[in-house]
Amino acid sequence: MRAAVFDSGVGGLTVAKSLIDHGLFDEIVYYGDTARVPYGPKDKNTIIRYSLEALEFFKNFEPDILITACNSVSAHAIEELRQNASFPVVGVIEPGVVAVRNKIQDPDAHILIIGTRATISSGKYEKLLSAAGFSHLTAKPTPLFVPLVEEEIFDGKILEATMHHYFAGLTPDAVILGCTHFPLIADQIQKYFGPQTILIHSGEAIVEYLTNRYGLAPSRKETRLKLFASENPEKLKKIAAKWLGKNFRYSS
Amino acid sequence: MRAAVFDSGVGGLTVAKSLIDHGLFDEIVYYGDTARVPYGPKDKNTIIRYSLEALEFFKNFEPDILITACNSVSAHAIEELRQNASFPVVGVIEPGVVAVRNKIQDPDAHILIIGTRATISSGKYEKLLSAAGFSHLTAKPTPLFVPLVEEEIFDGKILEATMHHYFAGLTPDAVILGCTHFPLIADQIQKYFGPQTILIHSGEAIVEYLTNRYGLAPSRKETRLKLFASENPEKLKKIAAKWLGKNFRYSS
Repeated sequence: MRAAVFDSGVGGLTVAKSLIDHGLFDEIVYYGDTARVPYGPKDKNTIIRYSLEALEFFKNFEPDILITACNSVSAHAIEELRQNASFPVVGVIEPGVVAVRNKIQDPDAHILIIGTRATISSGKYEKLLSAAGFSHLTAKPTPLFVPLVEEEIFDGKILEATMHHYFAGLTPDAVILGCTHFPLIADQIQKYFGPQTILIHSGEAIVEYLTNRYGLAPSRKETRLKLFASENPEKLKKIAAKWLGKNFRYSS
Repeated sequence: MRAAVFDSGVGGLTVAKSLIDHGLFDEIVYYGDTARVPYGPKDKNTIIRYSLEALEFFKNFEPDILITACNSVSAHAIEELRQNASFPVVGVIEPGVVAVRNKIQDPDAHILIIGTRATISSGKYEKLLSAAGFSHLTAKPTPLFVPLVEEEIFDGKILEATMHHYFAGLTPDAVILGCTHFPLIADQIQKYFGPQTILIHSGEAIVEYLTNRYGLAPSRKETRLKLFASENPEKLKKIAAKWLGKNFRYSS
């Protein structure tokens, strides 16, 4: 099985990592639109346009499935991608909501959704969580976490001040990390809220989702990884070498 | 006189404001590439490509001069723009250096240059400052200030922690605000370093430069302002209404 993984930049490697760690695919073709990152502050129409361009690129590889690792893309362009693709297109939002449903029984649990402006303004998480019976929802754009992670600020005073800025007064039972960058500061977010708060990670959620819905079986197999970027592919490869485990090999 | 003002986003309005406040032009055509902002983390080649696209757009208006308000563009694409334009192209880096030379006599003064990664990695400020006889230079990328300003965080704990992160241990005599976003946090930067530190602002520097080099005379005339953006022009207009003074009127 060959999966195409699309992200606005390098953040989607956190999703690719989960797919690789669980050996779901023989090959992953990853494309990060690094020349136009971030998508988070952009308009719906711009996100759709860029996503359809990425789709055309992926068609060259005849993937069996397209996974949009980027929440902003998953929130705004998934229908348009499905209309134009001859293979299934899976976003990260529905898997995230399914993961919440699997992990949390209490419908009154307080669920905090954090993400970019584009993701939060779409209201997609709230819509699906409401439909799943959850009513105590807080959706909060936390755009500053993206440049912090890109600057490799994973802890320390700036991150603490930023968490306080966004989180003061909130005591959620679960937090949906609604942006591919956020798993890299998950430890600090966990520490801020305490061990009783459940964090939902898109990568883990999508592995569970693909296993259940598409019958994909986790395996120990090595994944061939093809990496493409609209700018500075060397940087993408360097970050991949740093973030990803050992269970893959590059291919071109 | 009609000036074209190019920026990667909305930040260049701080430069447009200086041009308007001093009534240098009858008309300013402003174009912000808001769909692809920020340019700061991008490659030289990408910045050149985007800048040449903007130039084609400006040619429709037959400007008398093109001002690249964006430091990243001024650092990387100014030669290419000049080769392809039939009118003068003025960046913000040379005017900034001239302003330092006009304000500071001591060649041993410590000058701190802050900007995006693209601007700082170009080494342009250092090259011109060295040629002007200054030897005690510190060039520091401070990319996090950009999203802070875009999130309208102009003071408070996050900004303080970020300034500490970048500035701890530095005691410059002058600071070049080498990014159009930074004038909006100039008060806090001034407060951090103290009143003896001189801040160099691109907008003010370019007014001085245009007056001296191009014989443009400051006046009290009203400037017609045409605003264009590659995405969300309404947002650009809203920010213009907030940041700019009263001495202009929109035109379309």
